[in-house]
Amino acid sequence: MDPTAERRYVLTLSCPDTTGIVARISGFLADAGGWIVEAGYHSDPGTGWFFTRQVVRADSVPFDAEELRARFAPVAAELGGEADWRVTDTGVPKRAVLLVSKEPHCLHDLLGRVAARELPVELDAVIGNHDTLGGIVRAHGVPFHHVGFPPPGNGRHQAAKDEAFGRLRELVGAPDVVVLARFMQILPADLCREWAGRAINIHHSFLPSFVGARPYHQAYARGVKLIGATCHYVTENLDAGPIIEQDVIRVDHGDTAADMVRRGRDIERMVLSRGLRWHLEDRILVHGNKTVVFR
Amino acid sequence: MDPTAERRYVLTLSCPDTTGIVARISGFLADAGGWIVEAGYHSDPGTGWFFTRQVVRADSVPFDAEELRARFAPVAAELGGEADWRVTDTGVPKRAVLLVSKEPHCLHDLLGRVAARELPVELDAVIGNHDTLGGIVRAHGVPFHHVGFPPPGNGRHQAAKDEAFGRLRELVGAPDVVVLARFMQILPADLCREWAGRAINIHHSFLPSFVGARPYHQAYARGVKLIGATCHYVTENLDAGPIIEQDVIRVDHGDTAADMVRRGRDIERMVLSRGLRWHLEDRILVHGNKTVVFR
Amino acid sequence: MDPTAERRYVLTLSCPDTTGIVARISGFLADAGGWIVEAGYHSDPGTGWFFTRQVVRADSVPFDAEELRARFAPVAAELGGEADWRVTDTGVPKRAVLLVSKEPHCLHDLLGRVAARELPVELDAVIGNHDTLGGIVRAHGVPFHHVGFPPPGNGRHQAAKDEAFGRLRELVGAPDVVVLARFMQILPADLCREWAGRAINIHHSFLPSFVGARPYHQAYARGVKLIGATCHYVTENLDAGPIIEQDVIRVDHGDTAADMVRRGRDIERMVLSRGLRWHLEDRILVHGNKTVVFR
Amino acid sequence: MDPTAERRYVLTLSCPDTTGIVARISGFLADAGGWIVEAGYHSDPGTGWFFTRQVVRADSVPFDAEELRARFAPVAAELGGEADWRVTDTGVPKRAVLLVSKEPHCLHDLLGRVAARELPVELDAVIGNHDTLGGIVRAHGVPFHHVGFPPPGNGRHQAAKDEAFGRLRELVGAPDVVVLARFMQILPADLCREWAGRAINIHHSFLPSFVGARPYHQAYARGVKLIGATCHYVTENLDAGPIIEQDVIRVDHGDTAADMVRRGRDIERMVLSRGLRWHLEDRILVHGNKTVVFR
Repeated sequence: MDPTAERRYVLTLSCPDTTGIVARISGFLADAGGWIVEAGYHSDPGTGWFFTRQVVRADSVPFDAEELRARFAPVAAELGGEADWRVTDTGVPKRAVLLVSKEPHCLHDLLGRVAARELPVELDAVIGNHDTLGGIVRAHGVPFHHVGFPPPGNGRHQAAKDEAFGRLRELVGAPDVVVLARFMQILPADLCREWAGRAINIHHSFLPSFVGARPYHQAYARGVKLIGATCHYVTENLDAGPIIEQDVIRVDHGDTAADMVRRGRDIERMVLSRGLRWHLEDRILVHGNKTVVFR
Repeated sequence: MDPTAERRYVLTLSCPDTTGIVARISGFLADAGGWIVEAGYHSDPGTGWFFTRQVVRADSVPFDAEELRARFAPVAAELGGEADWRVTDTGVPKRAVLLVSKEPHCLHDLLGRVAARELPVELDAVIGNHDTLGGIVRAHGVPFHHVGFPPPGNGRHQAAKDEAFGRLRELVGAPDVVVLARFMQILPADLCREWAGRAINIHHSFLPSFVGARPYHQAYARGVKLIGATCHYVTENLDAGPIIEQDVIRVDHGDTAADMVRRGRDIERMVLSRGLRWHLEDRILVHGNKTVVFR
Repeated sequence: MDPTAERRYVLTLSCPDTTGIVARISGFLADAGGWIVEAGYHSDPGTGWFFTRQVVRADSVPFDAEELRARFAPVAAELGGEADWRVTDTGVPKRAVLLVSKEPHCLHDLLGRVAARELPVELDAVIGNHDTLGGIVRAHGVPFHHVGFPPPGNGRHQAAKDEAFGRLRELVGAPDVVVLARFMQILPADLCREWAGRAINIHHSFLPSFVGARPYHQAYARGVKLIGATCHYVTENLDAGPIIEQDVIRVDHGDTAADMVRRGRDIERMVLSRGLRWHLEDRILVHGNKTVVFR
Repeated sequence: MDPTAERRYVLTLSCPDTTGIVARISGFLADAGGWIVEAGYHSDPGTGWFFTRQVVRADSVPFDAEELRARFAPVAAELGGEADWRVTDTGVPKRAVLLVSKEPHCLHDLLGRVAARELPVELDAVIGNHDTLGGIVRAHGVPFHHVGFPPPGNGRHQAAKDEAFGRLRELVGAPDVVVLARFMQILPADLCREWAGRAINIHHSFLPSFVGARPYHQAYARGVKLIGATCHYVTENLDAGPIIEQDVIRVDHGDTAADMVRRGRDIERMVLSRGLRWHLEDRILVHGNKTVVFR
């Protein structure tokens, strides 16, 4: 993160909607002397839920994040048992682990952004199911681990796979976010649950079109005029988790499937890095299978 | 069409690819003295087909479109029996019939564009399965016909529907293009075949996502971050015909399904009018279930 | 406006920023029982100003808009003498006058949107400095007035122009918004001042590029790869007022200046209608020469 | 470049337009047995010039690029003395030198793309007027040279600057393209002339808006709603050379100038890498101060 950036506390909250929530929260922050520099509110008529994200200057309140949490807890309690809230401190850098395979473009892009201090994150490690990308990762001063996965169809396949995922799980540890940067293995259900809400994936299609394998080839076969990419939280249902961000790029009859693969990379890079940034900045609130993104 | 525009002949051709096609066609046009003002070529590695569109100034060749066709026929014959070609004359305005229901936005948009001479077309008629839009159509000096369709579930439903489509078929006649401008009836298979390659539809989603009814509500339920529209040729398979054009617009958590319906109209208008223009300008070559669009 | 839409009160306010403003306003609304359905806040570090827009369901407060204003006035007073605020009632339709010349596309588009109830507005009149567009306006049931302007270079030019603007001023009256929908006359300074903050113009370039006449021809000459349009409030400085909305469309070497004129219309229509909608929905707060747009 | 890609010869030509040029060129290629896989034509009504780019499979002609040039020369001669043409061979990789300063994002992006074999180019060297980016360049196995430039205002400033540019000129040598990847020095006129048509720059605004220094701060001050970037050939007139590519991204009142600087990087990366790709693939023909880009 930009070391010159002003330290801030970020409060996010979702709860069943009712009159006076904004007043209660902003009254609490005002009483604490909090100088609000960003505030987002969303009242969802479909679900009857309320969502907010408030950012205050750390130096405007006379105590630390821990104390802010302690003081806010009774306010949240008044909003009902379903209220889901968090206070984070931008002075405590978030930590990420990247999972990669052989496709290098998203990895290069993220390493470049971290090196350029564009993303407020520290990379604990990059883990690959191939070791081809280890060199560049280490050149950036980031640890790289190679975890081999068995080729499909092998007799002892499932056991070997379980073992590989077990090793992966240990190496990942407990970062703030696990980024599947074109990691070509489908996570087992238990990992999906363990990492719920903090594993983000980039899928190379405009979901829900072209779920699964080789989406650019599916797009080519259908003759679409735009191709896209989708950043979403990983859930047990393949490519069906809450969507964080999507974007598209124009293609035409002159683009082969290989051209789409190449050109789509630009969208994948942008969409993944935007989604990751919003996650790191606590801009995303998940409700059911949808996201509220306070940009 | 802009009456001051220079008259042109437009040659379009598709055939199996081989060496020397460009030379043969351009040699023919050069021998005829043709001044080429636009030329598009596409060689498709996937199918092994070749596609071209050539535009010559009418005043640069010493004969009319009919004679140009007669002279080009033997050249096309040399390119093999599968060659599909056409010569059109921009001096002969194309004719269109619009089919509408109650949704007015695409109709208003097309009437405005025709009145402003933005589209090179003459409207033979607008036909509605409701009569609510008759007033504005007639104010533009275009005939309006109301063809009632039976409500679903009626016992004599199918017979009444067949009769209505029979009447529609007669009223439409044989224009250069039939535009389904948010016409809410599914065309029967025989009409799809009769109008093959000249019936264009606007579907209010980014196909192949959200086929069928209420696509914006499907999009809202899935939580996508972009909504779109697709202009395609009508075929017997619902919303599955060759795609002509697509575009999208950004939405977020603050947009209800009703907001998406409203905001999507801007994309529907643009996508339909672009697709229609390209059809009228003979820019679209259909091959299998895909289009080559020379823009 | 959609007659089925729920009635709402919209409070907008801007004032010098300080701690506790959100708490004070939301506390006031909560005390009144106000159910907030939309809320936007912006704290501007550059100017030190605070901006907000809050929307409450009319049926959630036990009094009318007039009373809401009366009760809010002392709250606003506490925020300092510079505070600028307004309460509007979506149950009172806004009124607009459109100014046009000969270019029909923006007019057709706005008439279509009003007819389709896409815009929450009633058209008092359309006034043209040519009468070519009178027919379609009247077909929509809207009064049309023709105010002739003298051709440039005429000896009595200035006096005739003053007289024409005098007549225009009278015919316009005092609507909520005056829309220059490709009106080709430059407003005199006194009208700019009289209509400050409620006259919106569409300029056919991506400002600040290509101020003044024939912007598409300027764009063609420079060889840009995107052309755009800008919706802004009219001020005494030509094409230099606060920008409300902008958008662009891709062009290439194949586009002549005439093609740009035609293709740019799609962007002009979209940008003007979006800007107008935001004005009608009280989403725009002007500060200095910039806008805050709560979307 | 992708080593598995099929080798191709690329012919580009511009000349005064006349009847039969396409026939002559395609006839020549057909006689040589050339299998055309891509062909672009442009006839410019404004200037009366004709432009073409033709791509043939190398294995379809029975001789090499040198021989193709020798055989095509008399054909080109027939098209008049002003004809400007070139034949390149995709089997001969193009070579580039990058010039950088301290801003890392475009450099990281290009290094990543070269490492991922997305761009058909070999990097001879990266030259920086600061040495901060040397580490990552060398980690990619590319030579890095530091050429110090005098700070402005120094008494011996001009002489020191001349000397630095002299050293830069020698280190650059004669590559196919010199990329100013956020190089913060203005090239002297003699270098602009020497590198004419092969020095490409990324300017961080949507030109012609915001020429010169700190364009994002200019954009912030004006209150624009989109920011952009422009890739152009370098000429003696600052930020006024032929435009290759431009793109924009949406901003709003919540974006500070610093946010624009950060967010604009995504557009700079994309626009520069696209422009560079088109240059490397011989897709760009320059005529006067404009470009024809065959995409």
